[in-house]
Amino acid sequence: MKNEKRPLGIFDSGIGGLTVLKEIIKLLPEEETLYLGDTARLPYGTKSEETVIKYSIENTRFLLKYNIKLLVVACNTASAVSLPVLRKEFSLPLIGVIEAGARAATKATKNGRIGIIGTETTIRSSAYTKAIKSVNPDITVIGQPCPLFVPLVEEGWLNDDITISVAGRYLTSLRNDRIDTLVLGCTHYPLLKSAIQKVMGDGVRLIDSAEETASEVRELLTNLGLINLSGSESDTKTTPVRRYFVTDVPVRFEEQGSRFLGEKIYKVDKVDLG
Amino acid sequence: MKNEKRPLGIFDSGIGGLTVLKEIIKLLPEEETLYLGDTARLPYGTKSEETVIKYSIENTRFLLKYNIKLLVVACNTASAVSLPVLRKEFSLPLIGVIEAGARAATKATKNGRIGIIGTETTIRSSAYTKAIKSVNPDITVIGQPCPLFVPLVEEGWLNDDITISVAGRYLTSLRNDRIDTLVLGCTHYPLLKSAIQKVMGDGVRLIDSAEETASEVRELLTNLGLINLSGSESDTKTTPVRRYFVTDVPVRFEEQGSRFLGEKIYKVDKVDLG
Repeated sequence: MKNEKRPLGIFDSGIGGLTVLKEIIKLLPEEETLYLGDTARLPYGTKSEETVIKYSIENTRFLLKYNIKLLVVACNTASAVSLPVLRKEFSLPLIGVIEAGARAATKATKNGRIGIIGTETTIRSSAYTKAIKSVNPDITVIGQPCPLFVPLVEEGWLNDDITISVAGRYLTSLRNDRIDTLVLGCTHYPLLKSAIQKVMGDGVRLIDSAEETASEVRELLTNLGLINLSGSESDTKTTPVRRYFVTDVPVRFEEQGSRFLGEKIYKVDKVDLG
Repeated sequence: MKNEKRPLGIFDSGIGGLTVLKEIIKLLPEEETLYLGDTARLPYGTKSEETVIKYSIENTRFLLKYNIKLLVVACNTASAVSLPVLRKEFSLPLIGVIEAGARAATKATKNGRIGIIGTETTIRSSAYTKAIKSVNPDITVIGQPCPLFVPLVEEGWLNDDITISVAGRYLTSLRNDRIDTLVLGCTHYPLLKSAIQKVMGDGVRLIDSAEETASEVRELLTNLGLINLSGSESDTKTTPVRRYFVTDVPVRFEEQGSRFLGEKIYKVDKVDLG
């Protein structure tokens, strides 16, 4: 059934994927969106591939009940380890954040040296390295896990002395490796852009997978003839439905989420997936 | 059925509770122990009371299958929010880490001013405050959440400049409040004792709930006639069975856990509770 008015489904381990939703809303303001944050089981970045795959399948099954036309895996860890399984298991169009970020980094680098920062599970998976090498095998890719970045963002210490010290420690080896492009391989990291840029210097280009993923969503919807055109054809603008589901109680998600989305969050329902 | 050879059950959200197990082994070396770390759903400290209670019930049900004679809730967050529910729901002897720590702090303070540090959910619950006030309502209790302490411990940055800066920021108000006793209200925090003591100064006594909990376990087992005497009666020493269960794959638990337990960890099985 081809129905372009169906919603987009987006899931993340928690609030980080809201940075992806934010970019999708910017590029595709007419689309209805359903966002699922698995807040009762977050974070994914310290869990095993096996467990993250299990959670990703459960999240996808849940969103499919709402007749979504496309799924965005808006979590780097889940994208890194579960995308192939999800593609095999489910028959809907699927976009992860890794491929978009990898492609953008490959275009951006001039010296052929790209750094990737992310959670332990994302870096261990080498998903970015594989995605970049599949575009250009001559590029050197250097990965660095930054486990404290997520808790620092959640604490709200963004452009902060302590955060800059932590960034300094994590990023020194990447700086010594003379990369010219650095992929922010976790949806929390765009909130640390300023601290990371300060440590890396202006010569290093930061790649925000959220923006790249949104462009890719628009491209795929266009190619599949699934773009929602109803808004642009009509004179009376109505705000499309935006629904949010979380697996833990909504309070914290509502409070912290608006910082990630850049607007107030309404309509958050608690659901049980476990 | 009174059988003093049955094992002790211990659960925690992950590895932190191993600091409690370590003290139990020290005091009660003959007892068999079953430890469950809910590593697929950790941490508990940022989750809601509702979700932590649900997980605690599932953990208890799992351990009960192994015919345990006593349950230790070796997680401050789980103890803070779920102990009353567990006591209502299950009929076995139950010990949490809060009451033991609260009692020890009440004995230790001279100026009647006690600080509590812990996760957000533990501090929000005011469980320590209630436990201390029930012993002595005149004591002033000041709580302070320290969300970055757990990730810092897991990163292994223990006696580290960055950790001391973070501790400085979290603990300044407690220092200004002139407390003389500080409860380490999270099983990860004993690993930061040295950094915390440096910030608080030698005048402040740190209370480690793990040690206090182990004493309370011995006391309760003695009072109930459930102490395992088989080892001390026999001339041939056999090491009692120590089993470990985790909900995520065991690798990380085995690697990190030995730092918390102070000895190598064997016999870790993955189980599914969700």
